[in-house]
Amino acid sequence: MITTDGNTACAAIAHKLSEVIAIYPITPSSPMGDLADNWSANSRPNLWGAVPQVIEMQSEAGAAGTVHGALQRGALATTFTSSQGLLLMIPNMYKIAGELLPTVFHVAARTVATHALSIFGDHSDVMACRGTGFAMLCAGSVQEAGDFALLSHAIALESRVPVLHFFDGFRTSHEIARIEPPGEALIREMVRDEWLQAHRERALSPDRPVMRGTAQNPDVYFQSREAVNPFYSNLPGIVVAAMERFAALGGRSYRPFDYAGAPDAERVLVMMGSGAEAACDVIDDLNAAGARVGIIKVRLFRPFSDEHLLAALPPTVQRIAVLDRTKEPGAAGEPLYQDVVTALAEHLGFGGTHLPKMPLVVGGRYGLSSKEFTPGMIKAVFDNLATAVPKNHFTIGIHDDVGHTSLAWDPGFETTAERSCHAAVFYGLGSDGTVSANQNTIRIIGEETGQYAQGHFVFDSKKAGAVTVSHLRFGPAPIRASYAIGTGQAEFVGCHQTNFLDNYELLDKARPGATFLLNAPWPPEEAWDRLPQHIQAYILDKKLVFYVIDAYRVARQNGLGRRINTIMQTCHLALSGLLLPDVAIAHIKASVAASYRSKGGSILESNFAAIDQAYENLHAVPVPDRLTATHGKRQLVPENAPAFVREVTSALLAGMGDSLPVSRMPVDGTWPL
Amino acid sequence: MITTDGNTACAAIAHKLSEVIAIYPITPSSPMGDLADNWSANSRPNLWGAVPQVIEMQSEAGAAGTVHGALQRGALATTFTSSQGLLLMIPNMYKIAGELLPTVFHVAARTVATHALSIFGDHSDVMACRGTGFAMLCAGSVQEAGDFALLSHAIALESRVPVLHFFDGFRTSHEIARIEPPGEALIREMVRDEWLQAHRERALSPDRPVMRGTAQNPDVYFQSREAVNPFYSNLPGIVVAAMERFAALGGRSYRPFDYAGAPDAERVLVMMGSGAEAACDVIDDLNAAGARVGIIKVRLFRPFSDEHLLAALPPTVQRIAVLDRTKEPGAAGEPLYQDVVTALAEHLGFGGTHLPKMPLVVGGRYGLSSKEFTPGMIKAVFDNLATAVPKNHFTIGIHDDVGHTSLAWDPGFETTAERSCHAAVFYGLGSDGTVSANQNTIRIIGEETGQYAQGHFVFDSKKAGAVTVSHLRFGPAPIRASYAIGTGQAEFVGCHQTNFLDNYELLDKARPGATFLLNAPWPPEEAWDRLPQHIQAYILDKKLVFYVIDAYRVARQNGLGRRINTIMQTCHLALSGLLLPDVAIAHIKASVAASYRSKGGSILESNFAAIDQAYENLHAVPVPDRLTATHGKRQLVPENAPAFVREVTSALLAGMGDSLPVSRMPVDGTWPL
Repeated sequence: MITTDGNTACAAIAHKLSEVIAIYPITPSSPMGDLADNWSANSRPNLWGAVPQVIEMQSEAGAAGTVHGALQRGALATTFTSSQGLLLMIPNMYKIAGELLPTVFHVAARTVATHALSIFGDHSDVMACRGTGFAMLCAGSVQEAGDFALLSHAIALESRVPVLHFFDGFRTSHEIARIEPPGEALIREMVRDEWLQAHRERALSPDRPVMRGTAQNPDVYFQSREAVNPFYSNLPGIVVAAMERFAALGGRSYRPFDYAGAPDAERVLVMMGSGAEAACDVIDDLNAAGARVGIIKVRLFRPFSDEHLLAALPPTVQRIAVLDRTKEPGAAGEPLYQDVVTALAEHLGFGGTHLPKMPLVVGGRYGLSSKEFTPGMIKAVFDNLATAVPKNHFTIGIHDDVGHTSLAWDPGFETTAERSCHAAVFYGLGSDGTVSANQNTIRIIGEETGQYAQGHFVFDSKKAGAVTVSHLRFGPAPIRASYAIGTGQAEFVGCHQTNFLDNYELLDKARPGATFLLNAPWPPEEAWDRLPQHIQAYILDKKLVFYVIDAYRVARQNGLGRRINTIMQTCHLALSGLLLPDVAIAHIKASVAASYRSKGGSILESNFAAIDQAYENLHAVPVPDRLTATHGKRQLVPENAPAFVREVTSALLAGMGDSLPVSRMPVDGTWPL
Repeated sequence: MITTDGNTACAAIAHKLSEVIAIYPITPSSPMGDLADNWSANSRPNLWGAVPQVIEMQSEAGAAGTVHGALQRGALATTFTSSQGLLLMIPNMYKIAGELLPTVFHVAARTVATHALSIFGDHSDVMACRGTGFAMLCAGSVQEAGDFALLSHAIALESRVPVLHFFDGFRTSHEIARIEPPGEALIREMVRDEWLQAHRERALSPDRPVMRGTAQNPDVYFQSREAVNPFYSNLPGIVVAAMERFAALGGRSYRPFDYAGAPDAERVLVMMGSGAEAACDVIDDLNAAGARVGIIKVRLFRPFSDEHLLAALPPTVQRIAVLDRTKEPGAAGEPLYQDVVTALAEHLGFGGTHLPKMPLVVGGRYGLSSKEFTPGMIKAVFDNLATAVPKNHFTIGIHDDVGHTSLAWDPGFETTAERSCHAAVFYGLGSDGTVSANQNTIRIIGEETGQYAQGHFVFDSKKAGAVTVSHLRFGPAPIRASYAIGTGQAEFVGCHQTNFLDNYELLDKARPGATFLLNAPWPPEEAWDRLPQHIQAYILDKKLVFYVIDAYRVARQNGLGRRINTIMQTCHLALSGLLLPDVAIAHIKASVAASYRSKGGSILESNFAAIDQAYENLHAVPVPDRLTATHGKRQLVPENAPAFVREVTSALLAGMGDSLPVSRMPVDGTWPL
């Protein structure tokens, strides 16, 4: 097992199975192209011993064109993209699919810019391509991003239908998890040389001249367009066979539609992507409490196989909620919702007997632009299904006081799985090393204790220099909590910068009795009094244990400048109790040694010294029984600012934007100054 | 009333209601940009007395960006495009709709390139944009292309939601028809100054600084995206009001979904675009024969208004066929089909009472890449609905012997409306003047006789130099026959080039007793014997009246070089009996005079002389009672050509490609040499 993120898990497979990789960077898919470029620069070979050629183009349109050309020449070609990048590939995608060229486009799914740009995750980009003729496979976790990358390449090569393989941008692309990546032997078994050979034989070649890329007239275009049908009708069978082969070879078990939950469920959720993982935890709890609920996880979105959907659906189902992570204003319904309605209506309209009658199907939108999708929200979707007249075309995750689409939810609802995890939250500056230290911690805990671990990193779109919140979970079972650590759920809160104290509610996530570690240039005896009032109040209310370290001084004294990441990491491991301190230190030193291997001895010694000194400089701060603060939370905008700035902009600055209702939002992206 | 084509009818309105027109040429929308550019170059003012600025960009992506920028500055901006051009606009379309910028994109809908490029018409380009948030209005005729252009601009300005206005490429964009264009007074009444003023006040301006085009994070993006909902929920009401205002002001009467047919229909067709016009003729005949059938013409495709669909549908409906002019391989169903299924399932699932139970809904594809959609095909779609288990996901218009999706149809089925028309077919060379002469004939007949007229021109994608077939209809009522003149339906066949005789079945379209006019350099007494056997056989079998003229000689003798168009036009009018010969000649001369006004006297005199001599050189050819041909149809490929070339390629060369079944088509666009 390895500790990695979704982009890396996916790119490793794509690089292994490609000869030409055309790239153009776009968040959050950029690391895939970056990794592939690095691997090829370091002569890492693909499955057949050749080093893939990585070509950066002028835009994603060029990358798609490069893939198209390489495929026609008989090469194995792939690309990585997101959002607007994917939109630029659309024209070539129609061509590639129409010409039955086996490629995989790996997509870290991201919001398409509308009233505002967003670098975050939803399925609006992928949905813009659903008419192209690409097959579409959706991975819901880091593990699946690797597994489905492999399945996608195998399926494309066998079927000749190109595959768009996607997973949730940032949520899955950047999540760190312990996974079992498909090994070389498994990869080799999944991709048969005869398919590759057939692809080679279809290559354009002066030795076997044919004409492609013609223009057709009304006389034969329609017939030609229908000639492709058997490739699509055969595809679900090929996917099932590939998934079964994958499982038989020691991989995990998947189906085009995977059902989980009560075998006699009355209420069923249908969705795809990372949110389905969290839903499984909720469903386990609801069923344990006597409910009859379940979920269909959509893996194969295109071709949409009615037959496999029906087979997966318990015949007891009465009501279905279909969740789409996209919005198409003016549509009769979001895409997956309409697909499910259509499949069921056809089944019953044509005398199908799997279901006794048409279930009531409702559709909802969730998670646009990486909006959190939490257990409380999932439960609200099931609760809506249990009402006399469920709301249709609802939203979940926001408060819509304009169109009144939103469902209310309980933000405190917590799953059993979540309670069994150790959760830790860290506030660092973008690019200050906090994220990589936390990634390292996950690796250490995973490898040393065998526990499952998850790291999720909430970046600001300003990227470098803004606050970055790391969410770490450790637990005995695979972690399916595909949402940020919520209010009152963290056993540990680390704050790496004192200026965050005055601006943010950064202890709202602490559980009662949790540990709070602060990096501050204050003697321990002054630390309490220096805190602003809202931080003191949290500590008192939740009876937190409070530690302080002057990590910048330790770093400086050891010649590390402002690099405090390993110091803070050492303190976290010491305080968390996840490992014995000596063991933790040995691992941290080993990984520092690995990181700085090429930099020579003195930087290693400085780091080792700083790690050792971390303990000595870590101080428990005595917490009095009352507030002593001399200042409160910083007022982020002047009192005489315009009402919009005071009420809306300042909420964003304070990290409280989630609480703003729809009515406070400009309708057209116009932001008052 | 004027005689014009769909592109011109649409562009005239767009030019009248715009200040900035960004263009990039792409077939079949190019004439719209071309016309707008010409009008502005000639200082033709818009409604407010200003001359629109026409800007040609480097691509359609730039044109969309130009529109976006102009709108943000408060200008009225529009563009015209098709197919791949529209795909390049998609990223900007999401932005324009997200920012609620009122524009209209006028689209001559065209096939998106897949296994092959096609310049012909279907809705695959428009469907690729259905997630963007643009409203979509579909015009089904030349009249509607003008009317809906006006409605689109008015609706966009009032609602702030941008509109994609589309009509069928070539079928509507290039069809010539007699229409009543919206007049200046009607246009002025439809577009209120207060909407324009509001648009101006939203313009980005240093006098009222605001911020737009921001990036948003997960905290507020979702809420902001939902803030736009009221604009979409209000839109159908705005559309209805605009349509009612348009009718009240003397325009025609439209609704978001227009129903035609039996008020107690059991079988109902749902479709949009030009094919719905032909369907109305078929429905009239079927109902006259005792059937209970009808059609919903979809005008407002987005936002898709369930309420208005339900209100338009007769509650007696038992079965519905939804026809889509697009194909999305792997989808659960084509877009309009899924919308209708969703709307009905929601209505009944939530206790709606307009329908007693769920009708059986089937979907089919038709007309891809301008494949003909004829009365026989329309009847076959209704016949399918009457079978015990109607075929779903069918195709109509091809013979699918692979996936067995196709419905069989009777190619001889003819409507009463069609039989009441005078139909004439002309075979000319691309760019030889045949098309413009026929356009001129339509104007003359329309203006002189008050008859309705239609001209449809079947171009080869090679454009100049290839065969172009003109289909002309004249009749007492508006002509809804949105299909080419079929086998045995033409009262008149003109062949302007003798080399077509040996290659094509060009008399298959002649009715029994029809007139055949041939331009040939043969004395009348030789003409019969010179014909190939299959042409002689048609003349004998159908008892055609056969005329010949050496139009090239007449042209040459009058100094007109190879320009035979007015000579052939004169012969057609003389033989057709549509006008008295003297009247016809006077009109032709008048239009020649108008065309060559700027060229001076001698060219006019030459044309007049040629027109006068046309009669003298027109000869009836005596037809014997038996075949005398010394040669047959030309063999277009050598006998030793590969089987594919003999059986498939040669059928295309012979103009018989329509008859090729799916099994003869390469699956991936690979064409053997």
